[in-house]
Amino acid sequence: MTDCQGDGAGCPMDLYEKLNAQGDKVRALKAAKAEKADIDVAVQLLLKLKVDYKQMTGQDYKAGCPPSENSVPPDNGPAVDGADDEDTVDPWNVSTTSAKGVDYDKLIVRFGSSKIDKELVDRIEKVSGQKPHRFLRRGIFFSHSLIYNSISSYCSRWLQDVFDIPLVIQMTDDEKYLWKDLTLEECHRFAVENAKDIIACGFDINKTFIFSDLDYMGASPEFYRNVVKIQKHVTFNQVKGIFGFTDSDCIGKISFPAIQAAPSFSNSFPQIFGGRKDTQCLIPCAIDQDPYFRMTRDVAPRIGYPKPALLHSTFFPALQGAQTKMSASDANSSIFLTDTPKQIKNKINKHAFSGGKDTVEEHRKYGGNPDVDVSFMYLTFFLEDDEQLEKIRQDYTSGALLTGELKKILIETLQPMIAQHQERRKQVTDEIVKQFMTPRPLNFNI
Amino acid sequence: MTDCQGDGAGCPMDLYEKLNAQGDKVRALKAAKAEKADIDVAVQLLLKLKVDYKQMTGQDYKAGCPPSENSVPPDNGPAVDGADDEDTVDPWNVSTTSAKGVDYDKLIVRFGSSKIDKELVDRIEKVSGQKPHRFLRRGIFFSHSLIYNSISSYCSRWLQDVFDIPLVIQMTDDEKYLWKDLTLEECHRFAVENAKDIIACGFDINKTFIFSDLDYMGASPEFYRNVVKIQKHVTFNQVKGIFGFTDSDCIGKISFPAIQAAPSFSNSFPQIFGGRKDTQCLIPCAIDQDPYFRMTRDVAPRIGYPKPALLHSTFFPALQGAQTKMSASDANSSIFLTDTPKQIKNKINKHAFSGGKDTVEEHRKYGGNPDVDVSFMYLTFFLEDDEQLEKIRQDYTSGALLTGELKKILIETLQPMIAQHQERRKQVTDEIVKQFMTPRPLNFNI
Repeated sequence: MTDCQGDGAGCPMDLYEKLNAQGDKVRALKAAKAEKADIDVAVQLLLKLKVDYKQMTGQDYKAGCPPSENSVPPDNGPAVDGADDEDTVDPWNVSTTSAKGVDYDKLIVRFGSSKIDKELVDRIEKVSGQKPHRFLRRGIFFSHSLIYNSISSYCSRWLQDVFDIPLVIQMTDDEKYLWKDLTLEECHRFAVENAKDIIACGFDINKTFIFSDLDYMGASPEFYRNVVKIQKHVTFNQVKGIFGFTDSDCIGKISFPAIQAAPSFSNSFPQIFGGRKDTQCLIPCAIDQDPYFRMTRDVAPRIGYPKPALLHSTFFPALQGAQTKMSASDANSSIFLTDTPKQIKNKINKHAFSGGKDTVEEHRKYGGNPDVDVSFMYLTFFLEDDEQLEKIRQDYTSGALLTGELKKILIETLQPMIAQHQERRKQVTDEIVKQFMTPRPLNFNI
Repeated sequence: MTDCQGDGAGCPMDLYEKLNAQGDKVRALKAAKAEKADIDVAVQLLLKLKVDYKQMTGQDYKAGCPPSENSVPPDNGPAVDGADDEDTVDPWNVSTTSAKGVDYDKLIVRFGSSKIDKELVDRIEKVSGQKPHRFLRRGIFFSHSLIYNSISSYCSRWLQDVFDIPLVIQMTDDEKYLWKDLTLEECHRFAVENAKDIIACGFDINKTFIFSDLDYMGASPEFYRNVVKIQKHVTFNQVKGIFGFTDSDCIGKISFPAIQAAPSFSNSFPQIFGGRKDTQCLIPCAIDQDPYFRMTRDVAPRIGYPKPALLHSTFFPALQGAQTKMSASDANSSIFLTDTPKQIKNKINKHAFSGGKDTVEEHRKYGGNPDVDVSFMYLTFFLEDDEQLEKIRQDYTSGALLTGELKKILIETLQPMIAQHQERRKQVTDEIVKQFMTPRPLNFNI
């Protein structure tokens, strides 16, 4: 990508001309009655370019209207929420009007990523020699950008175990301070508490570095150097377009995306990568975090670093249904890692939105709808056995399985998992957290 | 100052009401034919409030027109450059149309500071038991905010020597990187080279800490914590108003003022002040740096810190005259610390703007004008003896002293000073720089 004006992301005029050319191509294909698949590919690229254009300029692309110089997006309008009737997905808002939840196929087009299809899952199995994680098999991590190149990169625990790679986990306590009405000390304490839950998931201490921004920024000149590099190459117009910031936002929020971006570059961690800047990074993240990493991927080549690869995960739905929001302040909106077996049972029985019919008779006759049933959605996250899950789906759809029975399966799946987690978390001492959070070399083979 | 909307600096409506009240007061004083001095004081406060209002809202205050909600200053308009015919003074631009240079009395009103008058200089002499530095005696440091409270604070070398206080010197190499087309490594190297010149001025190594932002940010979690605190309490609207940033500026520039502000707070240096956050800071700076510290003084009470005090210095004029700019890239625009005795002589003889007459005869008859004569201005900076300086002023004004003779005095004053500086600089080894730049305790009594 060329940089015409030194203000990042190529220049609007380049993109405008690309859009003109792509529009011509689509019209030519249609006029020539080309194959539907070919037209679809051209249209998808056109849509992607339009999203990029809107993000860069704040304007909708219109043929014949070149970008104006001072174009900015309207205040308060998150740019990724481009069209009516679309889901809203940005780092601070996720909303949808559909009970099935967010339409991820649309998001894939909007965010310009690619779906993790059967072929790719098979390929991961072949390379790793292990059965891919159920999150990959079931499309919970549903899209990717560059997983092909990312085997030698950071990754989540499963990828870590299978591929023997180092994992770096950023706790953005500075972000929490900037967005919430909390003190720095509170935000830092929450970060350490969260680290305990992460450690309880079983990460390998020899391959995992967990850090708080508030600590690590002041412990690594290399990290700050990368932050400043990124901050020099991103304008307010760009973060306004990407994140919907306004002039009333504090300068901390405005510059924060650079801090979220810096760990994507391996020389931010000289103690791990020995100053190498060419080690590529894979970021498994929920798709609402995508704007940060779109920005990062845009900046990377301009500061001489490889682009990070992304694995996008779906959202974990609230108990009340996929179109409502989970909230840490509403105990009934989700199952918490601190819940007792009784709380788990009560919450699921009382609050988990059901795709079943109103009466047993109707349910037996017409069957339930697993696509909107939150208990079933949770099972796709937590039940390991693919065949058992498929049987549940079929039985629930046919009406053979009642809502109460489905809920019981979920309760009995979750209760031991969470109890085990709590048991492991108890064993995570402050000393262990300190070890995970100490900058140090890690053991891996890349 | 109350904070009505959580977006800093009190709220525009509060300030608007203060302005209404102050306008009423001025009118009442005039109607009552009060003492001129009383009216002047009331008018000065009114002017100051108007400047604050413009900075906060981007609008000129008008009685009867309350501030609108989304008011912002026009892009590209540095807010301190409020009226026509006024000097432009902000951290990146200093310009004036007067050969005498910037009108500092006007700046004092505009910036809301106070002049260092005879009374204050006498008071410094009494408290310190030493003759005040010529920069104070001659108004080179010409205004102050809170010097009364600042004896137990950081200070420049003279203040350090006289008052036995620690001095912290910030090298903003990150700022240079953000504003200039240079690499991080180049900016850092320049900072170290500049540190050598500073050290050569004779600062006490036991009382002086010099730091590069690029190094110290990554070496002090306390420093970054203060940066984030400041960044949370300053909005883009505010920095837009104060510094004239636009939407096309990179997010690094936009958030940089917080990094310039953080060293004003003593707990940014726990190795020196042991975590105390109540040690007040005195900042001797050229008045073009004032916007940073106006912002800092505004933020300080809202994050629980004392406001830093300021000592404003005049600008050192360019050889070609006070209305032109010194430039590091124009060797003839100033005397450099690296100049040879011959270069000093040639530059002053060829380029120093003269306040003398065209011929010796005219000069003898009408006399010269020391107020616009750059050689005389330089002597006010460099000649220690007040009586000798006054005699030169009188002789030049009367015509007894010719321009060539005045220039000769300056040349003979500067040549040994600069030679001595060069000699001292040679003795500043990399090891000494390293010591000055190492975070460590300092020796002082406050």
